[in-house]
Amino acid sequence: MERAPSDWQRVLHPGSVALVGASGREGNPMARPLHWLRDRGFTGRVLPVNPRYDELGGLPCYRTLADVPGPVDLVLALVPAERAVATVEEAGAIGAAAVVVFASGFAEVGEEGVQLQTELAAAARRVGVRVLGPNCQGLYVAASRLFATFTAAGERPLEGSSGIAYVGQSGAIGGAVLDVAASRGLDLSAWVSTGNQADVDVTEVGRVLLDDPDVLVLAVYLEALPRPDDYVRLATEARTAGIALVVLRSGRTDGGRRAALSHTGAMLPDTAAFDLVSREHGVVLVDDVEELLAAATLLRSQARPSGRRVAAVTSSGGAGILAADRCADLDLAVDELAEETREKLALRIPAFGAVANPVDVTAQLFNEGGGAFGEVCALVRSDPSVDAVLVILTMLVGDTAHALAVDLAETVAAAPPGAPPLAVVWMAGEDATVAGRGVLRDAGIPVFSSLAVATRVLAAVAPRPAAPAEPAPPDVSGGTRRTSSVSGGPRLPADDGWAALEALGVPVPRSVRVARAADAPAAVDAVGGTAVLKAVAPGLEHKTEAGAVRLGVLAADAEREAADLLRTVSGVQAVLVQEMVRPGVELLVSVDGGRDGWPPVLTVGRGGTETELHRDLAHALAPVSPATARGMLAALRCRPLLDGHRGAPPADVEAAVDAIVRISRASTLLEVNPLVVGTAGAVAVDVLLAHPEDRP
Amino acid sequence: MERAPSDWQRVLHPGSVALVGASGREGNPMARPLHWLRDRGFTGRVLPVNPRYDELGGLPCYRTLADVPGPVDLVLALVPAERAVATVEEAGAIGAAAVVVFASGFAEVGEEGVQLQTELAAAARRVGVRVLGPNCQGLYVAASRLFATFTAAGERPLEGSSGIAYVGQSGAIGGAVLDVAASRGLDLSAWVSTGNQADVDVTEVGRVLLDDPDVLVLAVYLEALPRPDDYVRLATEARTAGIALVVLRSGRTDGGRRAALSHTGAMLPDTAAFDLVSREHGVVLVDDVEELLAAATLLRSQARPSGRRVAAVTSSGGAGILAADRCADLDLAVDELAEETREKLALRIPAFGAVANPVDVTAQLFNEGGGAFGEVCALVRSDPSVDAVLVILTMLVGDTAHALAVDLAETVAAAPPGAPPLAVVWMAGEDATVAGRGVLRDAGIPVFSSLAVATRVLAAVAPRPAAPAEPAPPDVSGGTRRTSSVSGGPRLPADDGWAALEALGVPVPRSVRVARAADAPAAVDAVGGTAVLKAVAPGLEHKTEAGAVRLGVLAADAEREAADLLRTVSGVQAVLVQEMVRPGVELLVSVDGGRDGWPPVLTVGRGGTETELHRDLAHALAPVSPATARGMLAALRCRPLLDGHRGAPPADVEAAVDAIVRISRASTLLEVNPLVVGTAGAVAVDVLLAHPEDRP
Repeated sequence: MERAPSDWQRVLHPGSVALVGASGREGNPMARPLHWLRDRGFTGRVLPVNPRYDELGGLPCYRTLADVPGPVDLVLALVPAERAVATVEEAGAIGAAAVVVFASGFAEVGEEGVQLQTELAAAARRVGVRVLGPNCQGLYVAASRLFATFTAAGERPLEGSSGIAYVGQSGAIGGAVLDVAASRGLDLSAWVSTGNQADVDVTEVGRVLLDDPDVLVLAVYLEALPRPDDYVRLATEARTAGIALVVLRSGRTDGGRRAALSHTGAMLPDTAAFDLVSREHGVVLVDDVEELLAAATLLRSQARPSGRRVAAVTSSGGAGILAADRCADLDLAVDELAEETREKLALRIPAFGAVANPVDVTAQLFNEGGGAFGEVCALVRSDPSVDAVLVILTMLVGDTAHALAVDLAETVAAAPPGAPPLAVVWMAGEDATVAGRGVLRDAGIPVFSSLAVATRVLAAVAPRPAAPAEPAPPDVSGGTRRTSSVSGGPRLPADDGWAALEALGVPVPRSVRVARAADAPAAVDAVGGTAVLKAVAPGLEHKTEAGAVRLGVLAADAEREAADLLRTVSGVQAVLVQEMVRPGVELLVSVDGGRDGWPPVLTVGRGGTETELHRDLAHALAPVSPATARGMLAALRCRPLLDGHRGAPPADVEAAVDAIVRISRASTLLEVNPLVVGTAGAVAVDVLLAHPEDRP
Repeated sequence: MERAPSDWQRVLHPGSVALVGASGREGNPMARPLHWLRDRGFTGRVLPVNPRYDELGGLPCYRTLADVPGPVDLVLALVPAERAVATVEEAGAIGAAAVVVFASGFAEVGEEGVQLQTELAAAARRVGVRVLGPNCQGLYVAASRLFATFTAAGERPLEGSSGIAYVGQSGAIGGAVLDVAASRGLDLSAWVSTGNQADVDVTEVGRVLLDDPDVLVLAVYLEALPRPDDYVRLATEARTAGIALVVLRSGRTDGGRRAALSHTGAMLPDTAAFDLVSREHGVVLVDDVEELLAAATLLRSQARPSGRRVAAVTSSGGAGILAADRCADLDLAVDELAEETREKLALRIPAFGAVANPVDVTAQLFNEGGGAFGEVCALVRSDPSVDAVLVILTMLVGDTAHALAVDLAETVAAAPPGAPPLAVVWMAGEDATVAGRGVLRDAGIPVFSSLAVATRVLAAVAPRPAAPAEPAPPDVSGGTRRTSSVSGGPRLPADDGWAALEALGVPVPRSVRVARAADAPAAVDAVGGTAVLKAVAPGLEHKTEAGAVRLGVLAADAEREAADLLRTVSGVQAVLVQEMVRPGVELLVSVDGGRDGWPPVLTVGRGGTETELHRDLAHALAPVSPATARGMLAALRCRPLLDGHRGAPPADVEAAVDAIVRISRASTLLEVNPLVVGTAGAVAVDVLLAHPEDRP
């Protein structure tokens, strides 16, 4: 389905654009593309097509696409939904590369629209034309002055190119990004709204934009999750190209998901795998339009921090405290600076300031001028214990502000490549600080007005603080199958959880499965003289509550207990006689088998019967390395239990790590709970194996 | 120390202002007050005092304060720190009401400065003059055009009065609030920086500002916690006056506190009590300067929501999804609207929109004009299941935007009193939407640019989701006291935790304290034949790890075990022989005895030896009512354990509630862990009573 790059060149930098259904009516948004293409520096041919006119806006107007002389690269379909398929067919007939379908009335309106959209996609394939949309707002490309859009944000001059490109389904969100960015002096380099994505989607457009030499950052808005392969390819290519990829995904929460349902019919699946894949591939995830733009603004000119240690430099002690508060909320460290740095700072900062972090340079230093403030910032930035510098200016306006902006700009220019990022928060009216902000922006220093936004962006671009996350625990219920492992009993079915563990090399208790109570005493002897008896009954999950487990059964009592289980437990097929495992730290280890092409997610957490109450979980993409498994354990609140809590002996963490690594290799949905981690060894004491379709 | 209101009138609306040490140098910030008072509509007398000039800025200049003819209400001390005390004395001599001391060099610079500040405060008391500062930026009062400040934010025209007043220690943070508010068309009504607060503090100024008829919202920035009584008085008076109180406290986190330490020498105490007191008195707490201003902007014209149910109305499905995401993150509900509302909406909204919440009106409705959008908003706002309405506009500019703003403004004007608050998020460049924003602002509709800020503000002004604090009833009936600490053994010392529990009527295990091992067997028999033996050793905290607890001791073994404890436990004084309590759900219940005048805080959480790992806690001001205790239990993650988790019988919640209520009445620091809640009754199985100085 994908075309060679040359075809995309015809879309982004067309030699000719035909506007089918073009209107000349002033004030009609649909008339904007014609006027903008004609008047704002687009150098290709502009070809209105409308049987009702001979001429439109001073340009010759053609009756049909077939009447247009010469080649047509890009077609803008400014026609109602019911005319879209025909327009695509006509565009194919004259060899156009792509059609932008603006009309709504497709999948977003229900069954009938879905049908029309399917026809549109089929027509595109049939005639070999790419389709952007339907229900989209088109595209804008700075380099070719291509205004193939009617977004009201296009009313701005848009004469610059900030290196930030946007692609997303929503033209409304995109319009906000384009407009707000422009209002801050950061005209986008490219802008694409993909709408309902009947053919072209966000990842494909994103990959095309990576080839644009103007693009430094790609800001992406996702309403539906992309195909995993496409997303990984986009992320990988962005990384290779050295282009920062910032993604805002909506519908992340339940509330958001319900809204998504009514909006586009695209129910978003659980995003854990998406989040982990994004992190693994260096994608910056943000939560908000403001943050999307702010992160892009930071990354167009600054490196990503290599850690989470922030140094704040300010002349307001109060602002410094607030910055430290915000950082603490976001797991950003505001640590002491290196002693050498502090000594050097002490020579420059008045005694009533602070060389601690936050660094309080005092207003006096500002008033001194002469580069003193820039020097302090450069010193702090060169401290090896600093990963990012946040400069916080408060009520600084007029000449002092301008001098300081120039001073800071020179500091940034002098910084070695790969220096920690430096951003400014300017807590003063934007209108009163326009010039200073411009100086900083032109020097590649991002300027924010909100401390909250600046710290949230630093938190988003910095590496994560170890394995995080604690959404709802994985509910691996329903249709589960289980039975025993082996030591003399009947063979286990291949799809059995115990067999799966055995195949993975995960230690399990010695077990014998017996179908008759009379065989139970011998089985108890075989597993060590005292045993746990469990009723084997398909679909039986909370065995303890169901009275299907007998603990500490001796051989002498085994037949009676087994008979009792076989008589009382509903659906019972056999009795599993298992070795008693010594108590230890109980963990949950589960792997979800992957979904919709996304890689499987491994969950490690506090196990036992209270897993849901603890919600003490860490997630990673499966399979994991021992180092990742160790990191996941380290991130758990219950970690001290493994180290020997309150006088208990330490548990065998390496045995737990080994078991976790092995379980993470399962190719299906598998949940071990508990994995009992003792002082020597770790044993899977219960296991659930579910079919993918049982997933919640 | 407090003066009658009339004296404060002389400060806020002075008939005459003397500027001691006034400078005429252009460009010197310290020259600003003189020029501003002279030129910007202040109607009182402006009296420069400086022996170096006969005239300053065209006004007669006096050698000393004593030379000034006529009464002086307010003195601005534009002198260095070392001249401040003398200036206060001179001001006292001529009967001035107050002196504003701008100079730094006091407590913020260390020991020497602390001494100077103490002298300043003493001088103020001695001569009967109030002092604002030192190390402050003064005050501005819109009604009297009093520019008694040098804040650069004063460079703005500041001709309006938005009803928002600011008071805080920091002039830098204050300057940011003043400037940013003004840049958004919301000139503050009053503005006070209290600096080091040698005499006047934030709460006193706050209370004075409540009397200003112009003030609708009081925005407060706190760097150090105020005196509790003063704070409660401010909050109570604000509520009585119907004035919203919004408080930003800094130094809230550890990181922030360290910064506070180096900034003002004011180590903030734990803020749990402050937070709870604030909530109880209806104070809105915010985390950020942006939110302080945003909350004030909302509350100057809109009611506080009476719940946490938000309805979003937008023409961008994408924006609606993002809003729902943000609300979900902040515990704001985006619930289905009432059926009646949905039916009415369906008549007005095109079929491809959504009458679900978020309501997607579609761009078509905007373009229709004629009040359709305002009608939809009014409909949603009148839905009884809606507590707040968030209208989200995206790329809406030009005539359509203006018409829509007028339409919305009329909707708000037509809303009945007490209607849920309605706020607008406008995701488009501020410069391109100035007129529309102005229309909305003038109609009392707050307009935000950031969805994140708007939702955070709604979350801050809405009632909290969990257990609300409510005053405890005078007494609780039906104490289920089970046993006492005594049955034949020596009395417990009066300061003993067990005695405290006994006095409060909290059930404890039958216990006998023995000093000699030989008495242990009889004691075991007295408590039921099997006992727990605990070494009594002052200061011994983790008894289990110290080997100071023996479980399940029979009378036959009691002498040996007791002897062992008496021999091996360091500092042992006696052995407590306690009845074995049946296992149950283990809770932690502690009360902190209050600190620095703040009321005691009760903590209820999951108990046992893993309390620190669970971090499953709820807090309330002590003492609590049974309803509050129930609410706290309901807020715990471990709540299902009490209800009977996975087949276990339900625990006696009402017995737990009774014990919690009783423990909450302790007047000292008391920690019960565990309170064992069984199927019938709840027993305090271990207790710690600490002296206030032992507090962490």
